[in-house]
Amino acid sequence: MSHATGFRRRIRLGPGAEFDLISSLLDRDGDLPPEVVVGPGDDAAVIEGGRLVLSCDLAVEGVHFRRDWLSPREIGYRAAAGALSDLAAMAATPLAALVSYGLTPEDLRTGIARDLQEGIDEACHAVGAAVVGGDLSRSTTLVIDVVVVGRAEAPVLRDGARVGDEVWVTGRLGRSGAALRRLLRNGPSDEVARSVYARPEPRVREALWLAERADLHALIDLSDGLGGDAGHVAAASRVGIVLEAARVPLDPLVAEAAENGRESLDRALSSGDDYELCLVAAPGAVEGLAAGFESRFSLPLTRVGRVVEGQGAYLDVGDGEPVPLRGSGYDHAAPSEPGPG
Amino acid sequence: MSHATGFRRRIRLGPGAEFDLISSLLDRDGDLPPEVVVGPGDDAAVIEGGRLVLSCDLAVEGVHFRRDWLSPREIGYRAAAGALSDLAAMAATPLAALVSYGLTPEDLRTGIARDLQEGIDEACHAVGAAVVGGDLSRSTTLVIDVVVVGRAEAPVLRDGARVGDEVWVTGRLGRSGAALRRLLRNGPSDEVARSVYARPEPRVREALWLAERADLHALIDLSDGLGGDAGHVAAASRVGIVLEAARVPLDPLVAEAAENGRESLDRALSSGDDYELCLVAAPGAVEGLAAGFESRFSLPLTRVGRVVEGQGAYLDVGDGEPVPLRGSGYDHAAPSEPGPG
Repeated sequence: MSHATGFRRRIRLGPGAEFDLISSLLDRDGDLPPEVVVGPGDDAAVIEGGRLVLSCDLAVEGVHFRRDWLSPREIGYRAAAGALSDLAAMAATPLAALVSYGLTPEDLRTGIARDLQEGIDEACHAVGAAVVGGDLSRSTTLVIDVVVVGRAEAPVLRDGARVGDEVWVTGRLGRSGAALRRLLRNGPSDEVARSVYARPEPRVREALWLAERADLHALIDLSDGLGGDAGHVAAASRVGIVLEAARVPLDPLVAEAAENGRESLDRALSSGDDYELCLVAAPGAVEGLAAGFESRFSLPLTRVGRVVEGQGAYLDVGDGEPVPLRGSGYDHAAPSEPGPG
Repeated sequence: MSHATGFRRRIRLGPGAEFDLISSLLDRDGDLPPEVVVGPGDDAAVIEGGRLVLSCDLAVEGVHFRRDWLSPREIGYRAAAGALSDLAAMAATPLAALVSYGLTPEDLRTGIARDLQEGIDEACHAVGAAVVGGDLSRSTTLVIDVVVVGRAEAPVLRDGARVGDEVWVTGRLGRSGAALRRLLRNGPSDEVARSVYARPEPRVREALWLAERADLHALIDLSDGLGGDAGHVAAASRVGIVLEAARVPLDPLVAEAAENGRESLDRALSSGDDYELCLVAAPGAVEGLAAGFESRFSLPLTRVGRVVEGQGAYLDVGDGEPVPLRGSGYDHAAPSEPGPG
């Protein structure tokens, strides 16, 4: 099954310490009520018989953003973009957002929240979501939690990939990670890197366009890098996913900075926060849409791999057996996985 | 109109710096989309033609809780209770919750999140809500943002109070504030105060019971104290509310600690986080329910005031003109309001 159709299911996350913790925290309810179609583990939760999609994204100063790199408006924009990307990952139409602010005493004096909110409004309005409520508190660190609500008659989950399917991605990968590396090296005076880093675009319209035109078996946004996120899809669908190294579309920013092609590829596969989409569909189901997609969104749509029997994500570099991709982009210490069955 | 019936409206908040800031941040969207029935300003937002109610509640260490007073499980419970009380305040049936955690590196090591989540689960399960998702990040301060989703065919807002209506409250007021004062004085070894403070009960079932049996014109939970919250209802409904001093039901914990009756009353009127409900209905509409309510919930249901022409909340101490209640329980610096018209 590629779509939520009213029954309850749980999604298995790929390996990685962070995912284990989230999973163990949230996945303890033995019985979810019947209204809950998809519980913890997918990009977003689905309730109300599959109609309503919910997700939240917490941004913390010093972890997700630095004030010396971004303007308050950009910080707000990025916080909302992260949550909205989770709706894109379910092919849901954004409807509303709520925002909780933890502001330092200094923030309360300077009125920074107004600028943060402008950025949040901008990201939300660009995809049709209204900011309908929120909360506000004093805090010792600036934190912003954005909760988004979307509607989807048939949300596309992570668990529908089938052996033989094709794996596709939107855009060119590694852009956000390359910008981050340049910022770490050059500081915010690197205006190219700063502007890329400040304005990730959640692929909301792209996801809706694709889901309307193809029977997508699985969909995810690249928040942990294609390597990690392909692993999440593989785990949820109980299949293996082989990525073909030569097909992965690299952003020019990655290639420019890397020593060689293999380093570019590794970086692109582990670049978090790219917000591009990875989609899985039957052979031939997406091919005919690529030209129309590119002309509509000025973004490539590229086949990067295939679904095989087994478990986990693999990289095929063209010189023999595909090799396991270790863990996610975030947790490189995760143990390697068994090979395809 | 006492109920949301599909049209869009905005709710006016009462006076107070905190409310002004929330209001100015969130109330800037000139046009809310038609799905949004109630935007920022009420206890919760209402979307999807009035069916869906959303609220979030951010709890920050050092502001909303202290680790030396409460166990992690109690901290989690209180965080969720605050959000669930917002659903009670709309007479909505809780459905689902999402939780975002900001955890310190030490918290990530000790696994405190598991205990926090147990408390959140407990509060949510007690009223039928499932925890369906969340987010997790490193942070320098422990923060917990709980987002709740409820369903209500006819959510009861703040803006339907009419001149001549009666004002009622559930329970006895000032309990939480009295416990907080004792904790500040005696520390956590004061086990009576600690247990009261640790376990506020959101009046979810009570609100649903009342809304099923009476045509409630307005409903609010007492998060800022009856003085402040009556002010919110008065502002939203563009009326005056007169509270009758002799009728306000005081919790024994308040009376025990106060110098005299007037001090007890002042404390009860400004005690935040009591989570009792204040309801407004036509004369006679609630009277007949009080005995059944008390026997069902072991809680008094007391008429405490009346709706008059004018604006703001007033206190009638029985010796002349009602006097304006200043600001909310939170912001005592707010200017006093003009008298009833």
